[in-house]
Amino acid sequence: MKYLRFRDPAGSVRRGTFDDGTVQFGDQQYEVSEVDVLSPTDPTKIVCVGLNYADHAAERDKDVPDRPLLFLKTPNTVSTHGDTVTLPAGKQRVDWEAELAVVIGEQCRNVAVEEAMDVVEGYTCLNDISNRDDQDTEQNWVRGKAFDNAAPMGPVVATPDEVPDDATIELRVNGETKQASSIDQFFFSVPELIAEITTHLTLEAGDVISTGTPAGVGPLSDGDHVEVDIEGIGTLEHDVRSPSR
Amino acid sequence: MKYLRFRDPAGSVRRGTFDDGTVQFGDQQYEVSEVDVLSPTDPTKIVCVGLNYADHAAERDKDVPDRPLLFLKTPNTVSTHGDTVTLPAGKQRVDWEAELAVVIGEQCRNVAVEEAMDVVEGYTCLNDISNRDDQDTEQNWVRGKAFDNAAPMGPVVATPDEVPDDATIELRVNGETKQASSIDQFFFSVPELIAEITTHLTLEAGDVISTGTPAGVGPLSDGDHVEVDIEGIGTLEHDVRSPSR
Repeated sequence: MKYLRFRDPAGSVRRGTFDDGTVQFGDQQYEVSEVDVLSPTDPTKIVCVGLNYADHAAERDKDVPDRPLLFLKTPNTVSTHGDTVTLPAGKQRVDWEAELAVVIGEQCRNVAVEEAMDVVEGYTCLNDISNRDDQDTEQNWVRGKAFDNAAPMGPVVATPDEVPDDATIELRVNGETKQASSIDQFFFSVPELIAEITTHLTLEAGDVISTGTPAGVGPLSDGDHVEVDIEGIGTLEHDVRSPSR
Repeated sequence: MKYLRFRDPAGSVRRGTFDDGTVQFGDQQYEVSEVDVLSPTDPTKIVCVGLNYADHAAERDKDVPDRPLLFLKTPNTVSTHGDTVTLPAGKQRVDWEAELAVVIGEQCRNVAVEEAMDVVEGYTCLNDISNRDDQDTEQNWVRGKAFDNAAPMGPVVATPDEVPDDATIELRVNGETKQASSIDQFFFSVPELIAEITTHLTLEAGDVISTGTPAGVGPLSDGDHVEVDIEGIGTLEHDVRSPSR
């Protein structure tokens, strides 16, 4: 099952089932083009994982860490399918990073690895946009990772049964493939990440864990059209503009 | 003026004016002891500042940075006056850190230093509880700073006119003074912090900036009673327990 969160023609926020370009809520059906697509969730926090694919760790000249490298994206980072993200001003390099994002289904703490899938509502696509100028010079990646709209995500939440264990993950910029991998390359699995994170803090229903990016990151430019495509979920598309435009 | 957020005897969440132990909302007056005190704000994020007093930077063997060292506390860190915080399990050292916290009054971005006080609703007391075991070994201080209830704050929001520029800030544990300084020792002022943070991200009404701690941090233990006392605001009090208790 796939779910799409949207604003209907009357302005109400709804979460409908999504199938083949059509969204259904109650007895109403809409073409996606008729509604405003909203972020699939409204998280209180996004807990992100760094260096979770060996090939990306190598391209950033880092070792894969012995426990998950965690960082945070705050609610101001949310953006979604169809949106245009303004890049932070005055930066040399702001990169794309395609990621599988886990949407949490219930408030949870101290979840065991074996039970971790019970708290997963489903998966969505996320672009972990990264301002390298600041990320590479600050202790905590706040300017680097938590700037406005640094986390476009969507378009739908797909339940785990929709997404194969070796689902492909691909990012394209202006139609050209830049990242292409599979989620079977994770260093830490989704259940391992949930167990580790909830050892330390409570996740709320709607919170997001973003699972890291494969090799192939690179710089975004004014006018770029970005697609993050994950097998079983679909394609998140968003645009990018420079702040001076 | 001081404002107290509370749950009234009928269970409704209210924000009343506070004066000398009495809170007023509409035509109703309550003694503080009659109501459940709630966190003075329900932030989408807490943007914290590290090493903003030279004496604390020295005790942590750090230099004062050339721009504010930022880190994040997520909504799960909120706790308030009268609460009992359970320390994270299995840690050798979890410290207190008394801080002046700024409560933001309106959604804002790219605020100039000269206009920054216009977006300040007021000030409250905050204990930036810090798990040093993890903070000292992780890139981003997620396990170190964003664990559950790592940010007791309160009891009231005091408007800026209530708090002198050289207000004293003091932290006591079980009645013994551990930190004693003045907010005139800030390396970066409140307006400078607001300008720097909003260069990078949007602050929402109710969001919090915590301005760093003076010298005198030290380890919390099971059963400790903590008071954070800032001139013009009042005293935040909370208890601490170990997870095994």
